[in-house]
Amino acid sequence: MRQDYILADPWKIIEEGFDAERVESSESIFSLGNGAMGQRANFEEDYSGKTFQGSYLGGVYYPDKTRVGWWKNGYPEYFAKVLNAPNWLGIRLWVNGQELDLAQQQIQNFRRDLDMQTGIYKRSFSATFSSGEQIEVEITRFLSMARTELGAIKFQVKALSACSLQWEPYVDGGIVNQDSNWDDPFWEHTDNHIDGTFGCLRSHTLKTKFEVATYMQSQLYIKDQAVAPSQNCQVDNARISCKYAHDLDAGMEATLFKYGGYISGTNHPEDQLVLQAQKQTQAAVVAGFDTLMDEQRNAWAEIWERADIVIDGDVKAQQAIRFNIFQLNQTYNGHDARLNIGPKGFTGEKYGGSTYWDTEAYCLPFYMATKEQEVARNLLKYRHNQLPQAIENAQKLGFTQGAALYPMVTMNGEECHNEWEITFEEIHRNGAIAFAIYNYIRYTGDQKYMAEMGMEVLIGISRFWAQRFHLSPAKNAYVMLGVTGPNEYENNINNNWYTNYIAQWCLQYTAAQWSLLEQEAPDDFKRISKHTGMQTSEAEAWSKMAAKIYFPWDEERQIFLQQDGFLDKDLKTVETLDPSERPINQYWSWDRILRSPYIKQADTLQGFYLFEDHFSEEEMERHYNFYEPFTVHESSLSPCVHSILAAKLNKMEDAYAFYLRTARLDLDDYNKEVEEGLHITSMAGTWMSVVEGFGGLRVRENQLHFNPKLPKQWDGYAFKINFRGGIVQLQQSSSGTTLHWTGNAPLPVQLHGKPLLLEPNKDSFIKNIE
Amino acid sequence: MRQDYILADPWKIIEEGFDAERVESSESIFSLGNGAMGQRANFEEDYSGKTFQGSYLGGVYYPDKTRVGWWKNGYPEYFAKVLNAPNWLGIRLWVNGQELDLAQQQIQNFRRDLDMQTGIYKRSFSATFSSGEQIEVEITRFLSMARTELGAIKFQVKALSACSLQWEPYVDGGIVNQDSNWDDPFWEHTDNHIDGTFGCLRSHTLKTKFEVATYMQSQLYIKDQAVAPSQNCQVDNARISCKYAHDLDAGMEATLFKYGGYISGTNHPEDQLVLQAQKQTQAAVVAGFDTLMDEQRNAWAEIWERADIVIDGDVKAQQAIRFNIFQLNQTYNGHDARLNIGPKGFTGEKYGGSTYWDTEAYCLPFYMATKEQEVARNLLKYRHNQLPQAIENAQKLGFTQGAALYPMVTMNGEECHNEWEITFEEIHRNGAIAFAIYNYIRYTGDQKYMAEMGMEVLIGISRFWAQRFHLSPAKNAYVMLGVTGPNEYENNINNNWYTNYIAQWCLQYTAAQWSLLEQEAPDDFKRISKHTGMQTSEAEAWSKMAAKIYFPWDEERQIFLQQDGFLDKDLKTVETLDPSERPINQYWSWDRILRSPYIKQADTLQGFYLFEDHFSEEEMERHYNFYEPFTVHESSLSPCVHSILAAKLNKMEDAYAFYLRTARLDLDDYNKEVEEGLHITSMAGTWMSVVEGFGGLRVRENQLHFNPKLPKQWDGYAFKINFRGGIVQLQQSSSGTTLHWTGNAPLPVQLHGKPLLLEPNKDSFIKNIE
Repeated sequence: MRQDYILADPWKIIEEGFDAERVESSESIFSLGNGAMGQRANFEEDYSGKTFQGSYLGGVYYPDKTRVGWWKNGYPEYFAKVLNAPNWLGIRLWVNGQELDLAQQQIQNFRRDLDMQTGIYKRSFSATFSSGEQIEVEITRFLSMARTELGAIKFQVKALSACSLQWEPYVDGGIVNQDSNWDDPFWEHTDNHIDGTFGCLRSHTLKTKFEVATYMQSQLYIKDQAVAPSQNCQVDNARISCKYAHDLDAGMEATLFKYGGYISGTNHPEDQLVLQAQKQTQAAVVAGFDTLMDEQRNAWAEIWERADIVIDGDVKAQQAIRFNIFQLNQTYNGHDARLNIGPKGFTGEKYGGSTYWDTEAYCLPFYMATKEQEVARNLLKYRHNQLPQAIENAQKLGFTQGAALYPMVTMNGEECHNEWEITFEEIHRNGAIAFAIYNYIRYTGDQKYMAEMGMEVLIGISRFWAQRFHLSPAKNAYVMLGVTGPNEYENNINNNWYTNYIAQWCLQYTAAQWSLLEQEAPDDFKRISKHTGMQTSEAEAWSKMAAKIYFPWDEERQIFLQQDGFLDKDLKTVETLDPSERPINQYWSWDRILRSPYIKQADTLQGFYLFEDHFSEEEMERHYNFYEPFTVHESSLSPCVHSILAAKLNKMEDAYAFYLRTARLDLDDYNKEVEEGLHITSMAGTWMSVVEGFGGLRVRENQLHFNPKLPKQWDGYAFKINFRGGIVQLQQSSSGTTLHWTGNAPLPVQLHGKPLLLEPNKDSFIKNIE
Repeated sequence: MRQDYILADPWKIIEEGFDAERVESSESIFSLGNGAMGQRANFEEDYSGKTFQGSYLGGVYYPDKTRVGWWKNGYPEYFAKVLNAPNWLGIRLWVNGQELDLAQQQIQNFRRDLDMQTGIYKRSFSATFSSGEQIEVEITRFLSMARTELGAIKFQVKALSACSLQWEPYVDGGIVNQDSNWDDPFWEHTDNHIDGTFGCLRSHTLKTKFEVATYMQSQLYIKDQAVAPSQNCQVDNARISCKYAHDLDAGMEATLFKYGGYISGTNHPEDQLVLQAQKQTQAAVVAGFDTLMDEQRNAWAEIWERADIVIDGDVKAQQAIRFNIFQLNQTYNGHDARLNIGPKGFTGEKYGGSTYWDTEAYCLPFYMATKEQEVARNLLKYRHNQLPQAIENAQKLGFTQGAALYPMVTMNGEECHNEWEITFEEIHRNGAIAFAIYNYIRYTGDQKYMAEMGMEVLIGISRFWAQRFHLSPAKNAYVMLGVTGPNEYENNINNNWYTNYIAQWCLQYTAAQWSLLEQEAPDDFKRISKHTGMQTSEAEAWSKMAAKIYFPWDEERQIFLQQDGFLDKDLKTVETLDPSERPINQYWSWDRILRSPYIKQADTLQGFYLFEDHFSEEEMERHYNFYEPFTVHESSLSPCVHSILAAKLNKMEDAYAFYLRTARLDLDDYNKEVEEGLHITSMAGTWMSVVEGFGGLRVRENQLHFNPKLPKQWDGYAFKINFRGGIVQLQQSSSGTTLHWTGNAPLPVQLHGKPLLLEPNKDSFIKNIE
């Protein structure tokens, strides 16, 4: 059973009614972030029920030692951990001496409401205490997009009968990670600074020595009257708190404003952190909560102006796509090139490290189309910066001459994943990083990037592939043994079609770009040749090798096989599985999964997605029809690719079902794990499902191609994409397509395969063909 | 470079000269054991240099939590750990207030001498202290084979100039394991009992609650005069010690006798442990050191009477085979059916658990031929006793209807290995356990064992195989996917020839034995059928399946392939490897090893060893010639099998080289790891190299077959085997073979393929054919 408690609304995520069993799920779903920091939707007040506490700070991590039963050479030493940072949210509250705790009082009218249009999260409820007191509470909270070191909370209490209230806003360094390999502490608290109701805790991470100041400031008002604290900030064991105490007449309200957040040594000199915290606080107090909220609305309005997707006639689909776009922007908005996009963003600890191949394979298109070009370029530069570490990583594994293997998971360029079978074998990630360079240049036309940075990355990666293939005399072809493809329900397989294919493409593309560089940028060519030792003869060898790569193939079915021997499996389709044993990763032993035919996520089909122009539609359909029935989609990255392919193949029911599955993966908790955090990177896949799937967007030879299709469940949809200095909006209705272009000069595009010239700032309406 | 400091001697292991770098290696090589307990050759006196302390008690273990980076269903929970037990050996010694410590003083004439004929270990040296005092020390130590709870030490000191000595014999519970997953303590010390110079520490293991009393008693003599202790036993923090202090004139000797050991709750009621320790001590004191030493000589003489192998003309080979036989008997002598044979015996911690497939595949023949039949039967019963756990283990992995998967490593029948890729995939172990039943009955003729215990084990194992194969429509044959064969340098491969072959044999053998049982023991047949639900239709289904099992095969080379796709590997032979990168497991990353063609140990050839009668000599030679050049022999279990096959194939130079490699694996430290402990189970393989390899012993249709060959490096060899109520001795010289038989009736045997009747107690000499 999927969960279904989130109420449908085009712009809001709403939960009504308090259910302790849903607290951890909702903590994920109502998470807030502003690109620089983020936090799960933990309650401000203390809560004695089951909760998963998490506040996270971008770029701050801890290299936990890996856990391995029996060490072997080349195993990763560290597993980078997303760190639960000190908590600045907390506000304890007592009513006539009884502490507010939703697990203890009777709770009515509980409601959460996350307004995605403004990035403002509200929670309200009334609580009845055992001795009869009753209060109504409304809390408003946001992490400022305009001031990324600041969060703000407005905590309103209305007394239904006269009572005494005591408040204790605090900052607490006594936090733990749920996910810790050795139960080591991750933080050391070094200093405090207190001044009235201002409190600031200085901490650093162990080993990595990231310096962080966690701060807060509070103000309490009854009507417009400030209430003085009953106790200024005091420090107790890495916990700073102040207190307010007052009486409240029946029907009266008290409001506590709390401002807080983190100042990180990654952004300021270490000796300025406390000063910066004071500045942020003072500026927030001067501006006031309402002004800060206006800033927040404006910042989000700007994001939505470019990134919104409208879906008419299907409010759940509408809500879901906005939730995906909202969460992506909360996680990474491109303002800080040092950051990247963790699979769970700021919503949980799992997948520890920050950067997976997800960034290149799934997230890049979203950021290319909805942000200025610099943002996508920064995502690429991130990898270029880490090329030396990728070369070192390959060296450790026995590769030579500047071959580069990018890590499966990384914070700083070093491999920091836990599992050898992934770090050693899931080398297809190298292909996605190369493909992203191609994809970026294809979309933006920024060919200069190739000479500036792209070529060196491609050379390192191609050298890796060239060494990783070897000639099989038995097959008289180049084979690649012992890999894991995108489908992680296989390990240590031979000739994974996807990996062989993307490696072949990479060798060919690099060789071609090397020739092009020689012709078009001879100075760059010389510089890179000198720096990398790259020679034209090496490129020629790659082309020769690429022409002789082996791909497993079934003559009878006319399909490429996911890997050698795939047809030996017990080929029962997913339909035959007992539903009580799904997801299989929660019920089956690992060896049983490995030898089964079940596919965790698109693997061969991932290749058809990336390289669709290399294949006919018949070929794609044949492969889709063969592989989809074995696919359990237990990776969040799977349904989106299937949705796009299904749309292309006019399997609109499939496309729609997969769209819902990717779009509402977390809202409806398809994979029964939302309490661990949201699947952020797959949300970019959801965006692709609409724009590339239903909208049919492609870029070919510097031109946009659209091939919009409308699922029968929808009345229409609309999206915008940023392209070469202007914005194209596509609106699809049941009668036809409207295109709008904001650039200065007319833009030639293709619609359903036919050329069309978009005039600046004019709508073009084209009736459906049928 | 192999180590070469052990001096050659037919009966002794000798080290001369003190080298701190060799201490840990020698601690392994000079290990003592008596089947019930064992210890590394740690110094009695304190030693501040590098040392690996270890005393181990049979059957006492700790289930350490496994270490896994990312948990998946069915992963083993526990890794049983061989436990370093409290130390009863320790004797501190001060000379004029300076403590004896071989890392601190100048050491001359250092010599260790382990007499394998008697099981007595001596260490002698002279030490010069910084202030000039000089002493000569000789220490004699043994673990009594006659009294398995007792060890004895005689520690003699001769003063070269007058000095004062202080002694402190002690028992110490403050020990640690080097190999601990989570640094948990393994022992809790609960009580002490002291009485004069008697001290006894009561402890139990955490979790498993094994109760152990570690005890000691000491006596000091100058000439024949007992010296009273200066301080009776005292207790300090799980450490019990007493003290002696006296002066010693120049040229005089003092001798401390220390008796000690363990009393285990596995052998006595818990409330009797201290009493039993007192009894052992008193009996030892009454008997005296010399009498105990006589008992030890007698016990070992009895062992050697049956088990000795004589090799003439090659002292290193002679020393080595005795070292192997000696260590096997120190580890397991068959007296306690609850125990088994750990890969490192009592000489180190690695491989934690007690029982691997090594027992059935390598050790059983040695114990069948050198001990009474009951010992081998006990090894088999050990597995029968654990059948319920094996069924439970298979259930956890999704198997049904009484299918049994024996664990890869176990103490009590539960799986307790660390690594999923071994526990899930190295299922060939099930085959070895089935084969051992066949092998035992073939050798002993004890067909009753089949009805009593063997059949139920075979049914459980065959049910596992029947479910583990599935029909590949592509191949129209039964395939087995996702296994690891004996060659652990491959993981998760398909159709490992060895595993498929032994599984096929097992299905056929079980089906045939089931029919036989119906005919010959109808009551047992009914009982087992009722108990297991086994029907003749099930046996028939197995026979059908067995006839249709797939084996990878290369038509061109006419060889079976180790697994699907083996010929795709980069088939460079071991000779082409850079010697500085060997052993490859110490230099190459794990993924590189996995995709390489290098074979850790006999895999396909292991099948040819077990089932040689199924193949022609030409077939065997073809496979030997193909696989041996890819084999790095980085498992201790590899060279012996190759030696046996090479002897059969008349490749006598290979056979001899592999014999030395298996026989002197630890003495010469081929695999650069002897400091971690000895390779006990492979030592049984060494025995097989002589008896089955050079001696050509086989049992076919209840008859012994010999086919003795003499390596040119040897003048002759002789061994005895226990067979059906008598002992056959074979002596091979350059001129011919002498056979001697001690049974009551004439014994028909075959020599070089020709029948021969051995008359009781008469030598038969047959000249060499050539």
